[in-house]
Amino acid sequence: MRISSIKNISTYSNRGMDLENDINDTNKYYLDNDIAVIYKKPTSVTIHKAEYPGPHKAVIKEAYFKTPSTTDYNGVYKGKYIDFEAKETKNKTSFPLSNIHEHQIIHLNKISKHGGIGFIIVRFTLLNETYLLFIKDLNEYLKNNDRKSIPYNYFKEKGHIINVKYAPRLNYLEIIDKYGGIYEKN
Amino acid sequence: MRISSIKNISTYSNRGMDLENDINDTNKYYLDNDIAVIYKKPTSVTIHKAEYPGPHKAVIKEAYFKTPSTTDYNGVYKGKYIDFEAKETKNKTSFPLSNIHEHQIIHLNKISKHGGIGFIIVRFTLLNETYLLFIKDLNEYLKNNDRKSIPYNYFKEKGHIINVKYAPRLNYLEIIDKYGGIYEKN
Repeated sequence: MRISSIKNISTYSNRGMDLENDINDTNKYYLDNDIAVIYKKPTSVTIHKAEYPGPHKAVIKEAYFKTPSTTDYNGVYKGKYIDFEAKETKNKTSFPLSNIHEHQIIHLNKISKHGGIGFIIVRFTLLNETYLLFIKDLNEYLKNNDRKSIPYNYFKEKGHIINVKYAPRLNYLEIIDKYGGIYEKN
Repeated sequence: MRISSIKNISTYSNRGMDLENDINDTNKYYLDNDIAVIYKKPTSVTIHKAEYPGPHKAVIKEAYFKTPSTTDYNGVYKGKYIDFEAKETKNKTSFPLSNIHEHQIIHLNKISKHGGIGFIIVRFTLLNETYLLFIKDLNEYLKNNDRKSIPYNYFKEKGHIINVKYAPRLNYLEIIDKYGGIYEKN
C-alpha cells in the first residue's frame, strides 16, 4: 500500500476569504504537513428519495438539512481529541448566541468532561478579528450573564486571538499548545 | 442553560440487527451513560440543486454520494481519540478488502501516528461474529500478504471478538480498555 503525501502549497492561497475556507485550508495544511488530523464533518442531511440510474450510480432527489447534534470540526492533535464549532458574525459589539445551538454547547461540555479539548472559533468579520474561546470560558460567561449574546469585549478578555497568516491561514493549534493543557478538564 | 440528560433504555432494544444499528445503539448507550462521546459522521454528499419553498425551509433536489475521505465513526473516550470504520461481510472465510477504501486505511494510520486509536470493526454476518482489528494488525497483514482479502482466521488470531449483549449491544470499548494502550503508537 502506497502512503501518498500530497504537498501542494498553492492550494493554501488566498481563495479562503471566509472563516470556513480559512479553517479548511488550515486543516489541509495541518494534514499535509503531518501536524494534526482534523476534518470538517459532512453536512447532515436526511435523504427521502434517491434514484438509481445505473448499477453504481445514485442520485438523491429529495433530502433535507438536519439540525446537527454535534459540532462541525473534530480530530486529533498530539494525542488529544479536538472538537470545535466555528461561526462568523457581522455584529461589531457582540456575538449573537443564536449562532450556536444549545446541544452544541452541551456536546462541547461532554467533550471536555471526557478529556477532549472543546472550543468555539468566532470571527468578527467587520473587525477582521478571529477568536478562540474555550468551552470553560464560554460556560463561565453563560453562568453569569444573559444568554442572548456574548460581548466582543468578553472575547478580548477571555478569548485568544488567532492571527491570519499565509500558511497556515489560521493557526489555532498554536493556542492549544499554549493554553490547551489547562483547559483539558472542566 | 439546561443540560438535559435523556435516558431511555427502551431505545437500545432489538431493532439493531445489523452492524451499523448495533454500533449506533452502543454509541447512544455510551453517551447516555456518560462513558464516551462517539458519533457516526453524516453521509458525505455533494449538493447540486436546492430549492427554498419558505424563508427557513430548504429542499435538496439533486445531490450525489461522495467517496468518504475519512472513516465513519470518531470521538473521545477517557481522553483518547477514537476512530474506526465498520463493515459487514457475508463471506464466511475472508473479509474482502474492497469494502474499505485505501484512503481510509491511510487515514487510520495517520490517526495512529498522531496518538489516536484507529481500528476496523468487521462482522461476519453468517458466522454471527464481530471482530475489532487494530490498524497496526491490519498493516501487519497488508505488509506480508496479498491485498484482496483478509482471511477469517487472521481475525481469529489477531483480532478481538466483540460479544453482542443487550446493552451495550457491542461493547467495543472493553477491547480498548484491554488492548488500546499498546496500540496507541504505531
